[in-house]
Amino acid sequence: MESMTDAPIKITKTTASKLEQVDFSNLTFGKNFTDHMFVCDYKNGEWQTPEIVPYGPITMEPSAKVFHYGQAVFEGMKAFKDDNDDVFLFRPKDNLDRINKSAKRMAIPAFPESYFMEGLQALLNLDRNWIKAGAGNSLYIRPFVIATESGVSASPSSSYRFMIICAPANAYYKGEVKVLFAEKYSRSADGGVGYAKAAGNYGAQFFPTSLAQAEGFQQIIWTDAKTHEYLEEAGTMNIFFRVNDTLLTAPISDRILDGITRKSLIQIAEDKGIDVQVRPVSVKEIVEAAKNGSLKEIFGAGTAATINPISGFGHKGETFDLPKLESSYASNFKKELMAIQYNTKDDPYGWRHKVLS
Amino acid sequence: MESMTDAPIKITKTTASKLEQVDFSNLTFGKNFTDHMFVCDYKNGEWQTPEIVPYGPITMEPSAKVFHYGQAVFEGMKAFKDDNDDVFLFRPKDNLDRINKSAKRMAIPAFPESYFMEGLQALLNLDRNWIKAGAGNSLYIRPFVIATESGVSASPSSSYRFMIICAPANAYYKGEVKVLFAEKYSRSADGGVGYAKAAGNYGAQFFPTSLAQAEGFQQIIWTDAKTHEYLEEAGTMNIFFRVNDTLLTAPISDRILDGITRKSLIQIAEDKGIDVQVRPVSVKEIVEAAKNGSLKEIFGAGTAATINPISGFGHKGETFDLPKLESSYASNFKKELMAIQYNTKDDPYGWRHKVLS
Repeated sequence: MESMTDAPIKITKTTASKLEQVDFSNLTFGKNFTDHMFVCDYKNGEWQTPEIVPYGPITMEPSAKVFHYGQAVFEGMKAFKDDNDDVFLFRPKDNLDRINKSAKRMAIPAFPESYFMEGLQALLNLDRNWIKAGAGNSLYIRPFVIATESGVSASPSSSYRFMIICAPANAYYKGEVKVLFAEKYSRSADGGVGYAKAAGNYGAQFFPTSLAQAEGFQQIIWTDAKTHEYLEEAGTMNIFFRVNDTLLTAPISDRILDGITRKSLIQIAEDKGIDVQVRPVSVKEIVEAAKNGSLKEIFGAGTAATINPISGFGHKGETFDLPKLESSYASNFKKELMAIQYNTKDDPYGWRHKVLS
Repeated sequence: MESMTDAPIKITKTTASKLEQVDFSNLTFGKNFTDHMFVCDYKNGEWQTPEIVPYGPITMEPSAKVFHYGQAVFEGMKAFKDDNDDVFLFRPKDNLDRINKSAKRMAIPAFPESYFMEGLQALLNLDRNWIKAGAGNSLYIRPFVIATESGVSASPSSSYRFMIICAPANAYYKGEVKVLFAEKYSRSADGGVGYAKAAGNYGAQFFPTSLAQAEGFQQIIWTDAKTHEYLEEAGTMNIFFRVNDTLLTAPISDRILDGITRKSLIQIAEDKGIDVQVRPVSVKEIVEAAKNGSLKEIFGAGTAATINPISGFGHKGETFDLPKLESSYASNFKKELMAIQYNTKDDPYGWRHKVLS
């Protein structure tokens, strides 16, 4: 590590690496964790000295506020390795900014940039052999913050723990994905926390999603809670619609996550001369487009999923299948994005961030 | 314990009680916990043998789903002691029913009634000296469930931990409470999880509440997310309005908690011949009633707070003070409720549940 001045990270290395036990050709997403983790506690009004320690269980008070009041936020990032064994992050500063935006909404103190960036670098350096080169391979990185104060009264915690854990990954979704447009359940309200990566936003989707799964849909596309007439996001992905050659996606709001993959795709599409319309997308127009054949694609965009083509959707008891295209926007954008992420082409945007060489 | 047949609880007693270290005349709510806690794990599709063990820290995987996806629900209950050292719970079956309703919405498996009721009894029996007689004294009981499976993919956990921890308590709120009617932020949406005691519902309120506190209001009364025109609940309390001699409170919905204190008060008020109107309560009518002097009282109702009189409210920059009444509904209802809870009068409703004698 070059610069430990701003963030004097205390490092304790593992004495027993688990690396050899992992079958990298057969990974379940988010199940195998690397040898080390980053930990930084907040108390007495400030973030304490960050540490990197061997990955392992943590000790919590049963009364810790995270268990009772869901005061917790997280991020999702990926590290990519090129054929020279250089390691890259994708727009990492945007993840820091977003976790701090999420944290503010959940009354959690902001985390310092130097701790975050140098913590990531030191952690990835220790666990660099867990990052495999080759398209599709990545290291999924999960920064998160939890409220640790002991006390069952509903008020903000005075202590927090910021952690980063990492899991080697291939693709997030497997197989065909059909989605159900939400008609009854909602993900978020105006004035709520939908734009934040707040832990509770995710657990709240599990039950409605299980109902959708029982009907043969893998995911839900959430609609606005007021009317269920506008398509918003998919809970773990932002969502894009291609009608003829126009690309539609909902504007961000306090209900919709400001996705980093989402905004990167908008930029890439615009630079290809595609007509991108960032505006409310109505259920009605998408159902009509499906019926008259102008709906060419739906795809999700998110860090875990990258770009996830949708094969069909359900709405009010009807199911609509999407055409199978030889050359889709989804596959073209994914190729473009991965070329930047894996350093196989120039990065005109400055998105690629070399973290290890 | 008489009946351990249905729920063979494994008990490990503490060897070092903390009871003597606690100043019962000077308790901070939810900060001091009793000597024991109830723990029951869910794995392989079923709840395992419940245990009661000395209160203390638990070990968690950093990737446990509760930290990342907020899959967690809780309850609030109180135990009361009368002058004969008999110990009572208040409508405990309703707490079990509600935690299972909350659990269902958060895709958490239901907890068995026998484990819950016998677990409570065994736990209170071990820690019965922590329950002090005398009006206002109680043992606050916090059952909760957290998702324990290791894995950072957004899907329901396959393992859970159900726990009960207890903290001796006096009153929840101290001093005068002024509330702000929500105009911008929201607590829940139609089709959301507002009716559940889901952990994330509470953390999401901390930031807006801190903004209200900076303006001199201790709590927020949440309004409907669609229009902010109707008064719903206070986040940790249901809310009642007395206009002349009529009592108004919002109907329960998927946005509003089905409060046990709330429904008990409605029953008590109706039996006193009071006109109780359970219907949407508009901000407009309450502001008008405050202006023309017909608004006599606002009070919150919840297990932690019992009945909490509100001294004034703010709305769109205006502040309204409520009259100080010699004989208020709030104080009369509280007296009535406490007489049932502390066994100083007959309980015509069957709400009082003797748990230890």
